[in-house]
Amino acid sequence: MSFEEKLKTFRERYRAITVLGGVQGLLGWDQMVNMPHGAMAERGAQLHALGGIIYDMGTNPEFGQLIENLASEIPDLDADDPIAREIKLAKRQYDLATKVPKDKMMEMIMATTQAQGVWEKAKASNDYALFQPYLQKILDLSLEFVEYFKPYDHPYDALSNQFEPGMKSKEVKAIFDALRPRQVELIKAIGERPQPKDDFLYKRYDIAMQRKINYLVATLQGYDWSRGRMDESVHPFTTSFGMDDVRITTKYIENDASGAFFSTMHETGHALYELGLGRMYQGTSLGSVSSMALHESQSRLWENLVGRSKAFWSYFYPIYQAYFSEHLSGVSLDDFYKAINKVSPSLIRTESDEATYNLHIMLRFEIELAMLEGKINTKDLPEVWNEKMRDYLGVVPENDTTGVLQDVHWSGGMIGYFPSYALGNLIASQWWHKLSQDRPNTLDEIAKGDLSGVLAWLRENVHQHGSRYDAMDLVKRVTGEPLNPDYYMDYLNEKYREIYSI
Amino acid sequence: MSFEEKLKTFRERYRAITVLGGVQGLLGWDQMVNMPHGAMAERGAQLHALGGIIYDMGTNPEFGQLIENLASEIPDLDADDPIAREIKLAKRQYDLATKVPKDKMMEMIMATTQAQGVWEKAKASNDYALFQPYLQKILDLSLEFVEYFKPYDHPYDALSNQFEPGMKSKEVKAIFDALRPRQVELIKAIGERPQPKDDFLYKRYDIAMQRKINYLVATLQGYDWSRGRMDESVHPFTTSFGMDDVRITTKYIENDASGAFFSTMHETGHALYELGLGRMYQGTSLGSVSSMALHESQSRLWENLVGRSKAFWSYFYPIYQAYFSEHLSGVSLDDFYKAINKVSPSLIRTESDEATYNLHIMLRFEIELAMLEGKINTKDLPEVWNEKMRDYLGVVPENDTTGVLQDVHWSGGMIGYFPSYALGNLIASQWWHKLSQDRPNTLDEIAKGDLSGVLAWLRENVHQHGSRYDAMDLVKRVTGEPLNPDYYMDYLNEKYREIYSI
Repeated sequence: MSFEEKLKTFRERYRAITVLGGVQGLLGWDQMVNMPHGAMAERGAQLHALGGIIYDMGTNPEFGQLIENLASEIPDLDADDPIAREIKLAKRQYDLATKVPKDKMMEMIMATTQAQGVWEKAKASNDYALFQPYLQKILDLSLEFVEYFKPYDHPYDALSNQFEPGMKSKEVKAIFDALRPRQVELIKAIGERPQPKDDFLYKRYDIAMQRKINYLVATLQGYDWSRGRMDESVHPFTTSFGMDDVRITTKYIENDASGAFFSTMHETGHALYELGLGRMYQGTSLGSVSSMALHESQSRLWENLVGRSKAFWSYFYPIYQAYFSEHLSGVSLDDFYKAINKVSPSLIRTESDEATYNLHIMLRFEIELAMLEGKINTKDLPEVWNEKMRDYLGVVPENDTTGVLQDVHWSGGMIGYFPSYALGNLIASQWWHKLSQDRPNTLDEIAKGDLSGVLAWLRENVHQHGSRYDAMDLVKRVTGEPLNPDYYMDYLNEKYREIYSI
Repeated sequence: MSFEEKLKTFRERYRAITVLGGVQGLLGWDQMVNMPHGAMAERGAQLHALGGIIYDMGTNPEFGQLIENLASEIPDLDADDPIAREIKLAKRQYDLATKVPKDKMMEMIMATTQAQGVWEKAKASNDYALFQPYLQKILDLSLEFVEYFKPYDHPYDALSNQFEPGMKSKEVKAIFDALRPRQVELIKAIGERPQPKDDFLYKRYDIAMQRKINYLVATLQGYDWSRGRMDESVHPFTTSFGMDDVRITTKYIENDASGAFFSTMHETGHALYELGLGRMYQGTSLGSVSSMALHESQSRLWENLVGRSKAFWSYFYPIYQAYFSEHLSGVSLDDFYKAINKVSPSLIRTESDEATYNLHIMLRFEIELAMLEGKINTKDLPEVWNEKMRDYLGVVPENDTTGVLQDVHWSGGMIGYFPSYALGNLIASQWWHKLSQDRPNTLDEIAKGDLSGVLAWLRENVHQHGSRYDAMDLVKRVTGEPLNPDYYMDYLNEKYREIYSI
């Protein structure tokens, strides 16, 4: 077989796996959005059966040999060449997949399917004890997985590698250590200033009206409704079943319309990325987002750098006000802008402001490190959580629903994910800096309600590349320098020193 | 391996196929209920990939050998024994599955996936010409399938066999020929009588209120919401992803609340059957409904024998009236009952009354026969349709949307399905006769709003048996005699002679 023939066969097999991955995505989406409770066991069986088939296809020795053969015919797998990169990534994925025995992978699928149902119940009924054995099971399995991925610098790296290929916990820790004092200093300075009024954000906001305005803002961002849809779920998320079916969810809360609003901007940011992946890479190893920090850089950019900007609200506030005139007719743009940017240490990560957000991540990162190092027992997690909340943010949850049970990640087996959020914040600011240089009129356009320039820049510089480059490589290629947290701190300082007149 | 070990292995393999069948069901449901239009090609690829895997599992020679080995150890496959029956059905399915080459099966999946999208568009835009080539493709493929299933008495039998195992078109024709004059006579007698007033049924009925009352009636029927849900789709349907996830859809029309109402009772009837299958048979060849006529006997029983009965409305009408007092406060129970049972030749099968319904089926049956015999060109279908409508029902559709394009079946490759509806009508009346003998208080219970007795009788006599017996065998076992169309004609005559004072 010629190289081209082998490549064709390989791509057909790879594509078949990604297609079934899309089916797996639908099973997961349906479970969160539609599935009746009684179907949990059946859904577990479905995920298990499909997971087994995908595992078999992805670890098939013939498939592995095909990748090896292709790799051996490529002079330099690290060359800046799309085919070299495609094979390199497929090889990396194959090697990782074959390291985990099938029964362990199946066990993890069953454990996380069950745990997600239990987590929902436990969160709804404030019952950490109900969830704890399931979390323990996932932790135990994760520690077994870690062993398969030896050698590693730290067990954490073996897990976070699936979200941030190549990123080490040591680097993350160094970034966090450098950021923490600067963020704390800013928060302290803010804390000494009077707080803006924001009671008008927490009145009864009609949910039917919230739905309408959320559809409107997603549309403004450029969400393609012919290739996506928006539903409701306990925990908002974005999921892709292929580049023409990328769905988002949100969660409406009657007395907090801005919560759902910014959540929708966030998820739409994720979805725009998936919808903007280069079609030439569809179904190949380059046709997906390779780093969750890159993914979060998109969601956080739309949610914060666009969504909480003065430029955006100078356009959008009159519309928003018209939808909710009952509560907002007497509230000025400036007061509204300050309210949605109020900095106040709070309990829920997803609802926290930009200045304190990363502290929530640091707390989770430390807990995950300690769990993996065996330094915390999962039974003690609520106490550890609450103690760290007091230390870092000065607030303590009254119950586990608003504390240790708030996030979906651990029930889904996603230990090692959280740092991607904080890294995403940093990258978002670095994109924004470059975007503002490349398109100096961006803020003026946004102030006129035209967000298409932002999307076009992201499509061109980020989305279309899929997994063509590693995250940190892409940052450097696009912005001309490595990840630099200064852009993030500069952005925060500038924004909040103005809002709080510091 | 002992018989028990072989049986265990066989059941695991069989169960794995049914589990993936549930996933296929979800892909289909999502396509009809949720999927954004742009995702059609991707969904086709997903159905294709999964269909291929299921085909491979179901036709795997090792699997076939296992079934053969088990069958050879059973003294009499036709014995009245659940394991003999289980193996007999699995053998029948395996034999049928292996007769169709994989590429043809894959072609059919692709053709029907595409055709369904096109049919929806064609129906919405009254454009038969758009749909015609897709129908032709499905007809051509069906004719190829027919060849694989030789020998047969008539090509029709080779296709309808998947819906009504063992039923011949000759028998169907004989039943229809005997019924037709009796139904026509009744309709003629009705036509000579004055019509009840029914304009109040076709006012503007608020759809939010329709939703509420439809949820209520499904609940009254005994639908288990923890194992199901109700959504909306262009064509109402019921689908099962396993016995704990059985979903129904409906379609609301503002100026016809009773349309959606009876459609919901109909689909709930289907769903109750699937939800009531014996759990001891779950995942085996006995754990499904083997005949679509049996399935329709449930939906039609709930829709008509319960749903359009005087007993039911003597309880439910005050509730219905309270929901829609604007239109019904001045309408008596008797007038309402007559209106929802008005007999009037009409265009749409699913909206037609009980007396004319079977004529719609006969028309479709004849067209399908003629298509398979090569006596009609698909290009001429609209004319043939309209001509037969004139002959049979005396009405002619003004456009193909309300004519030849109205049904989903052909786009889904379901040529040969329609007779199951008419047979279902007959069986429903025969069940009802026996149920009334076994439970003489049934009408009194229904008149008090208690439908649980009906459900209990159906669960006990029909649902739990799954595929344990062939359809006609079950009818005989339960009612003590073979299928007897007299019960159906007696029911129609008694009901309508009273309503129309004939």
